[in-house]
Amino acid sequence: MIKVAIAGYGNLGKGVECAVSKCSDMELVALFTRRNPDDVKPVSGVPVYSMEKAAEMKNDIDVMILCGGSAKDLPEQTPAMAKYFNVVDSFDTHAKIPEHFANVDAVCKENGTVGIISIGWDPGLFSLNRMLGQAILPDGNDYTFWGKGVSQGHSDAIRRIAGVKDARQYTIPVEEALASVRNGENPELTTRQKHTRECFVVAEEGADLKAIEEQIVTMPNYFADYDTTVHFISEEELSRDHKGIPHGGMVFRTGSTGFDNANKHVIEYKLTLDSNPEFTSSVLVAYARAAYRLAKEGASGCKSILDVAPAYIHPASADELRKSLL
Amino acid sequence: MIKVAIAGYGNLGKGVECAVSKCSDMELVALFTRRNPDDVKPVSGVPVYSMEKAAEMKNDIDVMILCGGSAKDLPEQTPAMAKYFNVVDSFDTHAKIPEHFANVDAVCKENGTVGIISIGWDPGLFSLNRMLGQAILPDGNDYTFWGKGVSQGHSDAIRRIAGVKDARQYTIPVEEALASVRNGENPELTTRQKHTRECFVVAEEGADLKAIEEQIVTMPNYFADYDTTVHFISEEELSRDHKGIPHGGMVFRTGSTGFDNANKHVIEYKLTLDSNPEFTSSVLVAYARAAYRLAKEGASGCKSILDVAPAYIHPASADELRKSLL
Repeated sequence: MIKVAIAGYGNLGKGVECAVSKCSDMELVALFTRRNPDDVKPVSGVPVYSMEKAAEMKNDIDVMILCGGSAKDLPEQTPAMAKYFNVVDSFDTHAKIPEHFANVDAVCKENGTVGIISIGWDPGLFSLNRMLGQAILPDGNDYTFWGKGVSQGHSDAIRRIAGVKDARQYTIPVEEALASVRNGENPELTTRQKHTRECFVVAEEGADLKAIEEQIVTMPNYFADYDTTVHFISEEELSRDHKGIPHGGMVFRTGSTGFDNANKHVIEYKLTLDSNPEFTSSVLVAYARAAYRLAKEGASGCKSILDVAPAYIHPASADELRKSLL
Repeated sequence: MIKVAIAGYGNLGKGVECAVSKCSDMELVALFTRRNPDDVKPVSGVPVYSMEKAAEMKNDIDVMILCGGSAKDLPEQTPAMAKYFNVVDSFDTHAKIPEHFANVDAVCKENGTVGIISIGWDPGLFSLNRMLGQAILPDGNDYTFWGKGVSQGHSDAIRRIAGVKDARQYTIPVEEALASVRNGENPELTTRQKHTRECFVVAEEGADLKAIEEQIVTMPNYFADYDTTVHFISEEELSRDHKGIPHGGMVFRTGSTGFDNANKHVIEYKLTLDSNPEFTSSVLVAYARAAYRLAKEGASGCKSILDVAPAYIHPASADELRKSLL
């Protein structure tokens, strides 16, 4: 049994807790929190400890899955934990990945541990598919679409507007753009042509709805470059119809082969997810298996999804996989 | 530059010849054939040699890409070539993969070479996606659909019927089955519910069309378990409308997460290929890069797509990939 621990018990940590329970070769042995451990009541009943106690349990844990946020938690926590444990995280600030990788790599190499960073679906499975597509069809184009799904960042941006009580923002791929890409037309697409944004907003009583809408649709970076629709709804409607955290999207590689480029090919990788955090957690747990196995083989250092041979994430042996699945 | 050679110059060999020309880090240095080398005129002008001469060029070739058939050529040729070269093949007889793997592995380990077998899209990219899906969503179902595309085996089976001059068979996924899988309904599908078969047949003059159609639709293993449509067309129509070798298909993993399994997820990997052999060739060439790099690192033995870390197939460095693509 692979002994797994979780650091951080938000949506992601809860997802990992459940995903581990679905793996017959893993057991969850500890949950670490920065809150008062007595205030955290995990569904599975796993023991809860203060984050500072982690180092003391060095010999009881095979892999630590980091479930904090990319902005403030992971840049500190992943290297700190990598001193004692094999670690897996979902660091998703694309621009800072090389720096985070270097930090984790240095600690892992010094301490003989394995770190696998930026695991999830984007970065993660989407990155893997972008890379495979480029390598297989060098003469081609990449497209990534997101949604339909909830963007937490955009929802938060709306919530910061005066007069807004709550909000939920959906990112939606434009059907015409998808059709053109799937048809192998290799379109050049502007930001506006790729995605639309749909906002469901609960306004405070007496708020100026016209002004809120105007502030949303003209907001730079977040909405100004998109066709944005704003719906004002009641608090009840929001909690009844928009409680979930669905997401997903598609990665395409389109390209041509042949000396006259006569033959077109379209590779599409599509995710349709009811729960963004629970799916991300499921990917983290599969790569925790890889971290454990790599460390057992004597590997150390930091890796991304691109650096890990796929068979490491599946519970079956290489022989079984070749026989039953290849 | 990675020095690549091709063994066998059919559709697959021609595809590899072109795919190598699209890779700036590779050059094609030789083509080996069992025919009279003077009778083979490759598009690229690469030198052509008799298959028996290969061993003499041991030091001039980094990777040999095997382009023969799975039934008779590859079980002999891949181990024979692995004695002298790093090899990549597209061995696709699923049931015999473990045996082929063991044969190639033994030769590779004895001679310090790397062999990567069963590369292409199925086995190959489809296998990879089946494996990733199972590992990420252990609580779920797999579905593989093929087509719309030409099945050479089924086309050949029709051609063997008396009175048939030529034929082309398309395998077509059933839309209702696809819709149900995409909708996360986890249907149990019979063979008949998953695919239909459409046949375009050129009959000899005076042949009994009714009898030919009856023989096709009742043919065991090939057609009896499917809803099969037969169209009789002229030789001109066949060569005008059915000259290409398109194929493709989809691998799905559908599953649920959460302690109450409340959240459903659908992973879909879809290929739409104008040319089955040219796409397969493109995958072979990408994995030739991996074979070369693995051998340079000192690895030896046989591997499948599941055993190769993805970054090995992309021309960019790991640093560049993390920066630009992860």
